[in-house]
Amino acid sequence: MAVYTEVSDEDLAAFVAQYDLGAVLSCKGIAEGVENTNYLLVLERGSFILTLYEKRVRPDDLPFFLGLMEHLAARGIDCPQPVKASDGRTLRTLAGRPAVLVTFLEGLWPRRILPVHCAELGTALARFHLAGTDFAIGRRNSLSVDGWRPLLDAAAPRADEVKPGLAEALAGELDRLEADWPSDLPSGIIHADLFPDNVFFRDRALTGLIDFYFACTDAFAYDVAICMNAWCFEPDGAFNATKARLLLANYRKVRPLSSAETAALPLLCRGSAMRFLLTRLYDWLNTPPTALVKRKDPLEYWSKLRFHQGVAGPGDYGIDP
Amino acid sequence: MAVYTEVSDEDLAAFVAQYDLGAVLSCKGIAEGVENTNYLLVLERGSFILTLYEKRVRPDDLPFFLGLMEHLAARGIDCPQPVKASDGRTLRTLAGRPAVLVTFLEGLWPRRILPVHCAELGTALARFHLAGTDFAIGRRNSLSVDGWRPLLDAAAPRADEVKPGLAEALAGELDRLEADWPSDLPSGIIHADLFPDNVFFRDRALTGLIDFYFACTDAFAYDVAICMNAWCFEPDGAFNATKARLLLANYRKVRPLSSAETAALPLLCRGSAMRFLLTRLYDWLNTPPTALVKRKDPLEYWSKLRFHQGVAGPGDYGIDP
Repeated sequence: MAVYTEVSDEDLAAFVAQYDLGAVLSCKGIAEGVENTNYLLVLERGSFILTLYEKRVRPDDLPFFLGLMEHLAARGIDCPQPVKASDGRTLRTLAGRPAVLVTFLEGLWPRRILPVHCAELGTALARFHLAGTDFAIGRRNSLSVDGWRPLLDAAAPRADEVKPGLAEALAGELDRLEADWPSDLPSGIIHADLFPDNVFFRDRALTGLIDFYFACTDAFAYDVAICMNAWCFEPDGAFNATKARLLLANYRKVRPLSSAETAALPLLCRGSAMRFLLTRLYDWLNTPPTALVKRKDPLEYWSKLRFHQGVAGPGDYGIDP
Repeated sequence: MAVYTEVSDEDLAAFVAQYDLGAVLSCKGIAEGVENTNYLLVLERGSFILTLYEKRVRPDDLPFFLGLMEHLAARGIDCPQPVKASDGRTLRTLAGRPAVLVTFLEGLWPRRILPVHCAELGTALARFHLAGTDFAIGRRNSLSVDGWRPLLDAAAPRADEVKPGLAEALAGELDRLEADWPSDLPSGIIHADLFPDNVFFRDRALTGLIDFYFACTDAFAYDVAICMNAWCFEPDGAFNATKARLLLANYRKVRPLSSAETAALPLLCRGSAMRFLLTRLYDWLNTPPTALVKRKDPLEYWSKLRFHQGVAGPGDYGIDP
């Protein structure tokens, strides 16, 4: 939640002049989005989001991200659209950074998750998976199972500062995940970061998805597992089976899950918990507590991991296998 | 630059329902403004700024701030207007904080100051001073000369960490300011924090002033001195006499300066430099370098103070005494 890059008036005016959208009426830095700098830009012909890509985004990946947003919109998925400048191109440079103007998506992300949000999410996630199947570009998931060991190695020496015994427990879990991780599940483009702040609603109806900067090629059911962890636990840590059942049931109405996918769900949920636990743990140990970016508690995902270690099977998620 | 208070969907919907402005279409935290939480709120009937007052603003002062904004607008000063809810009141409560909805002001604050900005500022500042003369409420300036000694006492033990000899130099300067500070200059409502990020422009024409949360009763010429320090130095530290001359000349066309006011300008500029140096120094020493709020360099104001100590008289500011 920060503005990392300031843009001068002259640079902004010159940037906007490349579009057929009139002059700048207002430009406000948005305190959301951890990775990039975002401005809400009011132009004479409408409101837009101006994104400046900061150093954690690889410029080589930008054609994938921008192309995906265009591809999804062409298939009826509501998401921000990169706007073409007068020369027909979407990707430009501003203040020394790759920059893009995208359409403004109405809606609010839900601060308190209700079951109806999870139902809507299930439908939208499945539609998103189907819409991406004919997207021509792939992108490796650098934060899947083979990316976890280096993160654990980096965090392990100090992991016990966060919780005594954590390093050893995670090492054991990771051995198991590496041994059992499925490689033959139906795959395609997944969002990989579909947390509540990336899903907009209006009057409890989903209005769109944002922030595709972790999107990659991986198992669809792994994306489902990420959402189960992000949406189906209560603030007190309790798993809400009603929310999971609604999410899964609505997903399956649009994109049926194979028996291999449902059987793999508990393991995929453990893997998803491991992935967010490890990146949060790494950030926790390497970010001062008072830094510009708020640290997220890694132990929230330890508790979720422990829950999934204890489930008897996919039936515990309210699913009919 | 931060969102200190998150607002739940339900609380926001209930808050907005108190106004006759339709439903919420979007709500984005704004990464500007150090003191309060600000959201850009798009409602069915327009865009507004939602401000939640954080703990540095005294609730007792809110009627002064909100009343001033209404008073100024009634006298033709462009500034955000507190919006009345259906019950006719502007000040409400949201997420446990005093909260207000104000109108959205078009324009951009200038990242690079041009002479024309200073000319426009001079006119607007004088109009603001005149418009406030019949405002019924006063507010003591807690950051004027009698507030500096406690700040220096708090910062002095560690001031030399920032610059060797700083504590002693500031103590000597403060002795002089306390002895010579004028008490009989024309006074009224001053903005007291009219930095470039609080002044909006469009096509080099000033569109309005924002952020009245330091406004108070004090000498008008002291407000001029604050603006000279904030607007008339180049990024390399050099004083730009052209900018000062334009600011002062345009101010005087609207509100003439008395000979006592012009004679006092060098001392008032030193005092203004001391005020911002001390608050920045205090924050510098008491805020971790990585905190959510960016620290501002106190030595920028040390350099400005040194400049004003060296001026021979108001003629050095391009002014005809």
